[in-house]
Amino acid sequence: MTDPAPEPHTPQGESCHAHTETHLCMPEDARVKAARRLAIARGHLESVRRSLENPDVYCVDVLKQLKAVQGAIEGAAAVVLRGHLEAHVATAHERGDEQKIVDELMEVFKYT
Amino acid sequence: MTDPAPEPHTPQGESCHAHTETHLCMPEDARVKAARRLAIARGHLESVRRSLENPDVYCVDVLKQLKAVQGAIEGAAAVVLRGHLEAHVATAHERGDEQKIVDELMEVFKYT
Amino acid sequence: MTDPAPEPHTPQGESCHAHTETHLCMPEDARVKAARRLAIARGHLESVRRSLENPDVYCVDVLKQLKAVQGAIEGAAAVVLRGHLEAHVATAHERGDEQKIVDELMEVFKYT
Amino acid sequence: MTDPAPEPHTPQGESCHAHTETHLCMPEDARVKAARRLAIARGHLESVRRSLENPDVYCVDVLKQLKAVQGAIEGAAAVVLRGHLEAHVATAHERGDEQKIVDELMEVFKYT
Repeated sequence: MTDPAPEPHTPQGESCHAHTETHLCMPEDARVKAARRLAIARGHLESVRRSLENPDVYCVDVLKQLKAVQGAIEGAAAVVLRGHLEAHVATAHERGDEQKIVDELMEVFKYT
Repeated sequence: MTDPAPEPHTPQGESCHAHTETHLCMPEDARVKAARRLAIARGHLESVRRSLENPDVYCVDVLKQLKAVQGAIEGAAAVVLRGHLEAHVATAHERGDEQKIVDELMEVFKYT
Repeated sequence: MTDPAPEPHTPQGESCHAHTETHLCMPEDARVKAARRLAIARGHLESVRRSLENPDVYCVDVLKQLKAVQGAIEGAAAVVLRGHLEAHVATAHERGDEQKIVDELMEVFKYT
Repeated sequence: MTDPAPEPHTPQGESCHAHTETHLCMPEDARVKAARRLAIARGHLESVRRSLENPDVYCVDVLKQLKAVQGAIEGAAAVVLRGHLEAHVATAHERGDEQKIVDELMEVFKYT
């Protein structure tokens, strides 16, 4: 940890190099946890793709499996979102960039 | 192809071995097309996972990328669903299994 | 019920006047059940709207209530969808309009 | 406006009586705008419900209309969410209630 004075609201990994006003680093624990979940989702997605090599595979089973994969990715996204809300959105008024922060978040929510 | 009289409503790949009343094979073209899309989605998902190894990655960028991955998987699911509707649901009354077919499809739609 | 010979796959209310090849009537029971659910959803929606007249209302409570209303409408849509699948989609191959039936259904699912 | 010193991050209507630490009032403009949208959505929902009194109504038309109603409610929810993010979430760290604020927001997002 090279940062001698970590603000509690911007938790940062040991090598987040962008300590500028315009860059916000993802909380370390959210980053690690989300990556782990995405690795699992990737394995699941790959097994669904492989199941399509079998001509006997049934459409509805594929649809159910894809739903499960979507749920796993959704879970990873929830980890990222929670980290973002805690580390960046909850502190936006203090930094003074709440308009930008809220705009980009609303953009993400669109059609979700 | 061992089936000498293929019903037009149950298109089957050359090696769908389950010519029984209780098994419905996925249309060959849907199977191939969905597999191709899932391969692309898997590549995209892997690149998002890898991006999380970078401590400078920004939460909102990850959320946007995950949304794109979800869209790609959704697209693959749409291919599977269309094939299922055409090959199995539209012919369910003729086969006499419409109750089972509709029940399992409604189950898939739940919470989607 | 004035229809003396109801086809099992096209259940119709006593006054569906459009017995033509190009028109498909909604199953009576789905129509009644969906209407009842929408009446409940409308009441719930109106109570949420009214709650916004109170300056003390809390955002998160409104969001939760709107989610419940969406769930109720989703429930009504599920009733309509099930009726459509049973009465019109499962019989599409017999009628020969499965392409149109599947196309319009896929259109409805888009972005859902 | 009777409040002589409005904090920019907690905009309040003229009659939000709960100026306590534990209560957060909805921004006036979001409240009014969301109410207007919900009134429109209610009218649309009522017209869909009424359309179900007609035995000739077509399932797919009902599904499309319900999707439009859902979109309108979604739009109202987006107004509420934006107001909440700007007025309450972006200021949560200052108030010190970010854990509660984030938890309840994540709860709302679940299964959405």
